[in-house]
Amino acid sequence: MPSKSAFLVPERRARVDAVVAGRTRTLTVVMEAFCDPQNVNAVLRTCEAFGVQEIHAVEGPMKPWDRNKKISQNADKWLDVRRWRSTGECLAHLKAEGFAIYATHLGEGSRPLGSLSFAGKVALVFGNEKRGVSDEALALAEARYAIPMRGFVQSLNVSVAAAISLATAVERREAERGGHGDLTEREAAELRERFYVLAVKQRAKIAKAERVAERRGGRRR
Amino acid sequence: MPSKSAFLVPERRARVDAVVAGRTRTLTVVMEAFCDPQNVNAVLRTCEAFGVQEIHAVEGPMKPWDRNKKISQNADKWLDVRRWRSTGECLAHLKAEGFAIYATHLGEGSRPLGSLSFAGKVALVFGNEKRGVSDEALALAEARYAIPMRGFVQSLNVSVAAAISLATAVERREAERGGHGDLTEREAAELRERFYVLAVKQRAKIAKAERVAERRGGRRR
Repeated sequence: MPSKSAFLVPERRARVDAVVAGRTRTLTVVMEAFCDPQNVNAVLRTCEAFGVQEIHAVEGPMKPWDRNKKISQNADKWLDVRRWRSTGECLAHLKAEGFAIYATHLGEGSRPLGSLSFAGKVALVFGNEKRGVSDEALALAEARYAIPMRGFVQSLNVSVAAAISLATAVERREAERGGHGDLTEREAAELRERFYVLAVKQRAKIAKAERVAERRGGRRR
Repeated sequence: MPSKSAFLVPERRARVDAVVAGRTRTLTVVMEAFCDPQNVNAVLRTCEAFGVQEIHAVEGPMKPWDRNKKISQNADKWLDVRRWRSTGECLAHLKAEGFAIYATHLGEGSRPLGSLSFAGKVALVFGNEKRGVSDEALALAEARYAIPMRGFVQSLNVSVAAAISLATAVERREAERGGHGDLTEREAAELRERFYVLAVKQRAKIAKAERVAERRGGRRR
């Protein structure tokens, strides 16, 4: 079967290839029992922008989040979002895969974000908007960290905290690992094919919308 | 008149003093015609956390934003938010005060955030959620910049972009200026007194709420 890339203009194919080259599965994010779907979607959008391919959502007392196109900018279409019923299962899986768990925590024993090492595989855990990261996650974490703040407000919005953490992680990975995007050739080839298919579908949708708009324009004349 | 600090416990007074020591008026943020009050409030919360004392809000086609306690965490209480009717007026004022204007822009001619200098006074301009920064602001800006992204989504949420920009600015200011908080002794003294008053009022409110809760608890017994 020929690659779907045959149906894409060279510019679009080059864009897919560039995005895949910037993707990683050795940095990941865990959203633990978020209650605001707006935060889930904002975090997904930031992950996509920073090349984080796999994200873990632990379901909490809230119902599964609604996709919100406006906020996520359809980011989840280009991501692997894994859902978990419990923090324990999710973190056990990540530990078995060799990830160090860094949990955001505003209490005692937290290190500043800037002091963390990103030389190895890292999973960043963000907690529920009100209660923060669970005791279970804290107990399983290799490190607790906080973003240094200097004002009266006690915390940052969780999507803001995730964004600052990811921007720092990318920078540190470039310094400590010599780069951020690091899929194996096989992972990259699989992802390219998947994205080519999505891009072709997207192109077809746009073309259809254009034809409809043209016909409507013609009728009005 | 004795200082209001006489009514504060030493820990609370020390907290006010520490916050004031971390405050600056040489880094500022301009929000140009935001349409989502949630974004305004999230940016205020981040500014407060990062010690940015003065923020400028240019009113656009939208109505003035609603204070949203949940999102801003009452951050604006501790800030100076100046409202402007037009971008031109706001940026002319900042230029006269010696600020270099850096406008976020995703188009051509934009430099990466990491290449900007924060050695002098800097105003970061963030644009409307849909249209971005206005042509007027771009024409007046010393530099256009963007946060490097590597995915398919074309932009970050504006409150996320502001947070990453501010975190970077604080770090660069520490490297380039030897520190972030830099009020003059007079500015600091004025702000301390203002914050002591606010902290005393806050303490009185909390005490009143505690007394009410105690009486209610008593009645139930």
